[in-house]
Amino acid sequence: MMKCVSCKDEYGAVDAGTCRECYEEASETEEELKLEIEELKAKVNFLRFWAPLDSRPHHYHRSTTPCFTDVLLVAFDQDSGKPIANSVPVPANKAVLASRSPVFRAMLETEMEESLSGTIKLSDVSYDALRAFVNYLYTAEACLDDEMACDLLVLGDKYEVKHLKSYCEKFLISKLNWETSLMSYSFAHRHNANNLLEAALSLILDNMDQLSKREEYMELLEKDPRLLVEIYEAYLSKQVNTAAAAGGGHDDKKKKVCG
Amino acid sequence: MMKCVSCKDEYGAVDAGTCRECYEEASETEEELKLEIEELKAKVNFLRFWAPLDSRPHHYHRSTTPCFTDVLLVAFDQDSGKPIANSVPVPANKAVLASRSPVFRAMLETEMEESLSGTIKLSDVSYDALRAFVNYLYTAEACLDDEMACDLLVLGDKYEVKHLKSYCEKFLISKLNWETSLMSYSFAHRHNANNLLEAALSLILDNMDQLSKREEYMELLEKDPRLLVEIYEAYLSKQVNTAAAAGGGHDDKKKKVCG
Repeated sequence: MMKCVSCKDEYGAVDAGTCRECYEEASETEEELKLEIEELKAKVNFLRFWAPLDSRPHHYHRSTTPCFTDVLLVAFDQDSGKPIANSVPVPANKAVLASRSPVFRAMLETEMEESLSGTIKLSDVSYDALRAFVNYLYTAEACLDDEMACDLLVLGDKYEVKHLKSYCEKFLISKLNWETSLMSYSFAHRHNANNLLEAALSLILDNMDQLSKREEYMELLEKDPRLLVEIYEAYLSKQVNTAAAAGGGHDDKKKKVCG
Repeated sequence: MMKCVSCKDEYGAVDAGTCRECYEEASETEEELKLEIEELKAKVNFLRFWAPLDSRPHHYHRSTTPCFTDVLLVAFDQDSGKPIANSVPVPANKAVLASRSPVFRAMLETEMEESLSGTIKLSDVSYDALRAFVNYLYTAEACLDDEMACDLLVLGDKYEVKHLKSYCEKFLISKLNWETSLMSYSFAHRHNANNLLEAALSLILDNMDQLSKREEYMELLEKDPRLLVEIYEAYLSKQVNTAAAAGGGHDDKKKKVCG
């Protein structure tokens, strides 16, 4: 019996882990990784901007100072042609917008309406989502719930802010379940969220027997039947692959028996 | 004998490290830390700006685009009252400068000369150091040699860019040796670099017998004798502490013998 230097329990040959040298090396590696994390966190803090509308209490002294903003973002109602109710323009810096989003860069660098007027109109976005979006561009931080994650994913896709999009995708994947998988699949399809799409599809393929019983199935059949076709295609392709793998396995077995 | 799951060598009880469970836990932790590092690196990349003067080849497409800069930094010769030779103004964004440095913020937010003229004059700085300084404010990156580390530490201290200062200090501490320790000590003193100061002092205290033989010693005696006094004071205080510790140890020993 030997004594584990970590948990102090005794162990036998079956439960053997590492020798002392490897243990010490691993501990050193862990320390180094932790140090690297500390340094990266400090870097993130240094590079992070306070956002123009940041109202977190501990950032109070920052939010009250001007930020040399040179552009306004307005949540716009496409139907009425007016800013949406209870919203005010969100101030921002062209340099920040252009640095984070190729779409904003193109808008601002060319002599487009946005660059001339100093105002960027965003349609189909709530005032809260717009504020959270701008805040993310400055800080790489957002407080997500299901709705906000969807709203920000849409904006991340539209304005090509990959980092935000992948952040929201990770959140939505972590919340995926069978109940929501079909709507998530359709949502991911609309907004080019491939990771979410795959995760949702995989969940759907595991529950094919219940698929057509779902309410959303009828909705999709009405609105976007091609999506359902894609699901069935994926199911078929998975079945063919599984059969091929099983067949291959069978062949191997046969060979062994014959050999 | 047991077999180490990491290096595959056999080991006996004396060289025992961990049991398998602890080994697996440690491996998981390592994976998680690596994942966190990847995420933080992505965040750093997202938050990093391209600097207005960035000329790295793979950032070419970025450096050629305008950056909505609204302020100019000029390396200035205090004696002649003119920009230093072969230098051009370095464009920057007020928002970035104010976000990274409380000194710049104060300059730009109040109705000072800098804020009115849109030009900030920096004296006692080379053109290269100024460019590197601005680049660091945008990217948290700098290519250091001894001279550049000193130049940037001075700027980091003057403009209160703590992250840059500590970055340069770390570099200079890693390069410390007995030959340079006295000048480093004096330099650290001038620019409030406490970590570098302590590291240099510790090296000096380990070589007190050779201290007064050094050329720089005579220079310091001439220019700033108080620094030498501080070194002697630290030496004395260390001696007293060592004696006290030895005395305490001696007492313990006596007690043990008596007991």
